[in-house]
Amino acid sequence: MTAAEVGVGLLGYGTVGAAVNRLLVENADDIERATGHRLRVVRALVRDLARERGFDPREGVLTTEFAAIRDDPEIGVVAEVMGGLEPAGSHVLELLGAGKPVVTANKQLVAQRGSELFAAAVAGGVQLRFEASVCAAIPVIKVLRESLVSTNVHRVLGIVNGTTNFILTEMERGASYADALAEAQRRGFAEADPSDDVSGADAAAKMAILATIAFGSRVTFADVDYRGLEDLPLGLPAAARELEMVVRLVGAATLIDDQVDVRVRPALVDRHHPLAAIEGAFNGVMLQGDAIREITLEGPGAGGIETASAVVADLVSIIGTTGTGFLHEDPCWRTLERMPPGDLRSPFYLHLEVDDRPGVLAEVAQLLAAHGVSVARLTQVPVGAGASLHVVLHEAPQRAVEAALADIADLPSIHSAPSLLPVISDRGVVELGWA
Amino acid sequence: MTAAEVGVGLLGYGTVGAAVNRLLVENADDIERATGHRLRVVRALVRDLARERGFDPREGVLTTEFAAIRDDPEIGVVAEVMGGLEPAGSHVLELLGAGKPVVTANKQLVAQRGSELFAAAVAGGVQLRFEASVCAAIPVIKVLRESLVSTNVHRVLGIVNGTTNFILTEMERGASYADALAEAQRRGFAEADPSDDVSGADAAAKMAILATIAFGSRVTFADVDYRGLEDLPLGLPAAARELEMVVRLVGAATLIDDQVDVRVRPALVDRHHPLAAIEGAFNGVMLQGDAIREITLEGPGAGGIETASAVVADLVSIIGTTGTGFLHEDPCWRTLERMPPGDLRSPFYLHLEVDDRPGVLAEVAQLLAAHGVSVARLTQVPVGAGASLHVVLHEAPQRAVEAALADIADLPSIHSAPSLLPVISDRGVVELGWA
Repeated sequence: MTAAEVGVGLLGYGTVGAAVNRLLVENADDIERATGHRLRVVRALVRDLARERGFDPREGVLTTEFAAIRDDPEIGVVAEVMGGLEPAGSHVLELLGAGKPVVTANKQLVAQRGSELFAAAVAGGVQLRFEASVCAAIPVIKVLRESLVSTNVHRVLGIVNGTTNFILTEMERGASYADALAEAQRRGFAEADPSDDVSGADAAAKMAILATIAFGSRVTFADVDYRGLEDLPLGLPAAARELEMVVRLVGAATLIDDQVDVRVRPALVDRHHPLAAIEGAFNGVMLQGDAIREITLEGPGAGGIETASAVVADLVSIIGTTGTGFLHEDPCWRTLERMPPGDLRSPFYLHLEVDDRPGVLAEVAQLLAAHGVSVARLTQVPVGAGASLHVVLHEAPQRAVEAALADIADLPSIHSAPSLLPVISDRGVVELGWA
Repeated sequence: MTAAEVGVGLLGYGTVGAAVNRLLVENADDIERATGHRLRVVRALVRDLARERGFDPREGVLTTEFAAIRDDPEIGVVAEVMGGLEPAGSHVLELLGAGKPVVTANKQLVAQRGSELFAAAVAGGVQLRFEASVCAAIPVIKVLRESLVSTNVHRVLGIVNGTTNFILTEMERGASYADALAEAQRRGFAEADPSDDVSGADAAAKMAILATIAFGSRVTFADVDYRGLEDLPLGLPAAARELEMVVRLVGAATLIDDQVDVRVRPALVDRHHPLAAIEGAFNGVMLQGDAIREITLEGPGAGGIETASAVVADLVSIIGTTGTGFLHEDPCWRTLERMPPGDLRSPFYLHLEVDDRPGVLAEVAQLLAAHGVSVARLTQVPVGAGASLHVVLHEAPQRAVEAALADIADLPSIHSAPSLLPVISDRGVVELGWA
C-alpha cells in the first residue's frame, strides 16, 4: 500500500480544532502506519483570520469561506469542530451531499438533527462519525458499532456528565452542594451558568445518542425523561454511605420487548457496582448485552485534547474503511416504541420524614405491601422530634411504587413530600460461573 | 452496497467455535447492516466428525481436512478457535500465505509466535486480528489500534487474570487463600491445575500482547518479569484495608525514554483507583496516553460466548475494512530496549516482622533514608512478642528500595524476610482541570 496524502478540512479552529491539527501533525507517522495514508489539514474555516491560535496552522490554511472547503477536491474528509446547530448543521449537510465524509464533535447537532444528517450521509454514500460527541476520548460509539455487533445490547448505564459527578464526589467527601459547585467552576469543569449540567439536560442529550446507537432506533433529546441535582434530599450522601452506596447522576437506557425507556436520574449506586468507582469529573458507560454480559468504559468525558483525540480516531477510521461497506448505513434501522414509564422495573430508594411514634413504620410497610412492593433494607435515624426513614425497596414497577408513595404521602404522620430515587445494584452477573 | 455473502472458515468447533457460528447465524442481519455483507460458516475443521456439538452446524460443514478450508475459494476469512500452538500455528501461517485473513483467539500463539504470524500476514497482504486473545469480550486491542492512534500510550495497567482476581476478592472478604482457590475451581473460573493462573504466567502472556500493541515493539512472554500469589505476606488483605487499599495481581507495561518494562506483581491498589473496582472474575485494563490521560475498560475476561463475541467483532472488522490500507501492517514497527528493572520508579509497600523494642523503627527509617527512600505512611501492629510493620514508601527507583531492603534484612531485630509489593495509586490526573 503506498502512502497517499489525504487532505483534511476543519470547520472551526478553536481549542478542539487546533488540537486536532496538532495531533495530526505530531502523529502523522502513526496514522500512516495504521491506515497507509498521511492526513494533513488543508483548510480550516474560521470567522476571524486575525485571531491568535493555539497551534498555528500553516500559511494559507485558515479561510472564512465555507465553499473553499466544500469545493476543494484535495479535501477527502472534514471534521466539524465549530459547535452550535447553525451554520454547523447546514455545512455538514452540504459536505455529505457533496460526497465528503464528515466527523463531528457536536453533541447537540447529532442529538437533535441526527435523522437528517444520516439520511444525507447515506444519500452521499459517505460516512458520518461522531465519537467525540459523547464522552470525548472514551471510544464508546466505536465499541458499540464495531465490537458489539453480535451482542444485542439491551441496556446502557452512563455517568456522562463530569460536572455533576465532580459535585457528587465532593459532596460524598462532606462538601455542601454550593461549595462543590463553586469548586467545579473554579477548576473549569462547570460553566458560569451550570444549568445545562446540573439540570441533567446535558446528560440527557448524550444518553439520547447512546440509546440511538445501542438500540438502532432514533431516540431524541425530547424522548429522555431527565432530572438533575436540584432536589436532592438533604443528608442523601450520608444516608447512601450508611447503605453502602454512593449517589451518582445516572443515565439509563433500557430496551425490553421492543420498547425503549431512556432517563436520567440521581440514583443510589451500590458501592461494588462499576459505576460507583467513577469519581471526580470522569465519565463511565456500562454496556450490557447478551454475549458480553457487561463492559464498562471509563475516562475523561471532556477536555480539548481528549475531544480532539476522538476526532482524530474517527478521521483515521474513515480513511481506514473507505471503499468498503463498513458503517455506511444510518445506524437507525428500526422504530421502537417508547415504554410506558410506569412499566420500568427497578429497585428504589425511598426517603421519608415521619413522626417518631409507634405504628408509623407499620403504616408505611402496609401501604407498600398493598401495592406489592417489598422492603429490602431500612434504617431509621432520629431527626429533631421526628425520624428520617431510609428505605431500599426490592425491584418493582415504577407504577406500583408511585401508587404506594401517593398513599403514604397522605398519611398524617408524614412531614414532607417523600423522595424516590432509583437504585443501581444489578451486579449479580459477576458472581456467575461461565462455560 | 449490495449484500454479498462471505464464507467463513473455522479452525475448531468446540465451545468457542460453536458460539461463533451461533452468533453469526443469530446476528446475520446486524452484521449485514454494519458491513454490507452476510457472513456464513462454510467449513469447520474438527478432529472427530461424530462428536456432539453445542450449536449444530449445517450438514456438510464439519470437515477433518484442513485443505478443505485453505483451498475453498468461497471462504473469505477464517477464525482459529482450536487453541494450542500446533497445528494451529502452521494452519494460520498457511492461510495467511494463501491470502486468507485470519482471526485468532489464541493467546499463546500470538504471544509466542506473533513475529512470524504478522510477517506472513504482511506478505499475504491480509489482516490478522486477535481481539479474543486478550480479555475476551473487552475490546482493548481494537481501542488501542484504532481509537488511540494519536495518543502515544505509554502505560498499560491490567488486571488480566480472572481466577486470581476472584481469589483476591474472596480473600478481601475474609476467605483463606486455599478456600478462595477451591471456590474458584468449584465455579469453573480455575482449572484443576491452577498453576498457570496463580503463578502469574497467564497474566504475563496477556501483558506481553498488550505491551506489543501499545508500544509497537515486540514484547514476548520471556520479556515479562512475573510473580503470582504464592508468596503473599500473611495478613496482607487486612493490612491493605487498614491502608485504604486492596490487593490485586497487576500487570504493568511501562514505556519511558524508549525503554520498556513489563511485569506482573501482586500490588496494593488505592481504593479510589479504577483497578480497585475490578471485582470477582472480571478483568480491567487502564490505558494511559498523552491525549487521553487514562481510559479504563472493564468486563468479563473469559467465557465461551464472550470470547466468541470478540471473534465475531474481528470478523466483522476485517470484512468492513478489506481493500483499504487499514491495519494491514505488522503492529510492531520499532525495536525498543528493555529497561533495567532497577530503574523503574514506583511507590512501594514494605512489610516487616520486627522486635517490639525501642529503636527498631529508627533503624529501619535510617536505612531507608540512607538510600534516598522516604516513608509516606506507616502502621505498626503488635504480633505476639514482636510487631508487624506496614510501610508505604514514596515513589523511588526499585534499585534504591531493594538496596535499602538488603541492609534492613541484615538488622538483628528483623524476624523474617521482608516483603515488598508495588503500590498503584497514580490517580492524580482526575483532580486536574482541563482547557
